[in-house]
Amino acid sequence: MTRLTIRIDLARNAAFGPGKARLLELIDKTGSIRAAATAMDMSYRRAWLLVQDIEAIIGEPALERRTGGANGGGASLTKRGRTWLERYRSIEKRATRAVANQLHALTRMAAGAPPKADKIFPRRSKRRNS
Amino acid sequence: MTRLTIRIDLARNAAFGPGKARLLELIDKTGSIRAAATAMDMSYRRAWLLVQDIEAIIGEPALERRTGGANGGGASLTKRGRTWLERYRSIEKRATRAVANQLHALTRMAAGAPPKADKIFPRRSKRRNS
Repeated sequence: MTRLTIRIDLARNAAFGPGKARLLELIDKTGSIRAAATAMDMSYRRAWLLVQDIEAIIGEPALERRTGGANGGGASLTKRGRTWLERYRSIEKRATRAVANQLHALTRMAAGAPPKADKIFPRRSKRRNS
Repeated sequence: MTRLTIRIDLARNAAFGPGKARLLELIDKTGSIRAAATAMDMSYRRAWLLVQDIEAIIGEPALERRTGGANGGGASLTKRGRTWLERYRSIEKRATRAVANQLHALTRMAAGAPPKADKIFPRRSKRRNS
């Protein structure tokens, strides 16, 4: 099924998209940055840097960290981290709903349907008769 | 200004997003895959592979190629390539309009505003009094 993914560019070099959202969700689920990094097939260092990016964007800690331990310490989302994530998902859902018909038409076009069969995109051609 | 970028996942490993859209636009503008690749700071080979991906998604050629010449031949968008690109941009615009208020609230949150100041996201808390 065709799916819409969004990236939000808040400022130059401050983007929040599917990768960071997924990382927060996995940290929330596993309670560990390391476990989340492994699940996403990335290094602990890369996950840690992404968390730094996220916190720079949010302007506050996104995680509460418990340092030490064999697994590199535990982590859970702060209230603000969770609120941010939920809002991102909310925006994604609303955007997806808003363009559902267009996504369907694009999917049909990808499957070989001629573009003219779709009536849900604005017409480009100018009318000759007014 | 906060900006929404969309990626459309049509099937497993068949995604169309900002990079491919920009590549098509630059090919359209410059008339050359090589010039578009240079403008995007990528290799000709990478641009060429992205065009292959795009054509696999669209199911038809996205470009009309003129082979040979010092610049690696010229290229222009086919009608179907152009239609696809326009529809992608149309979906992006519509999605952005649909979530404009939420993007604004997220921008305010990133700038330090407390989440509770926003009333445009659905409340999570359950009402105790019905």
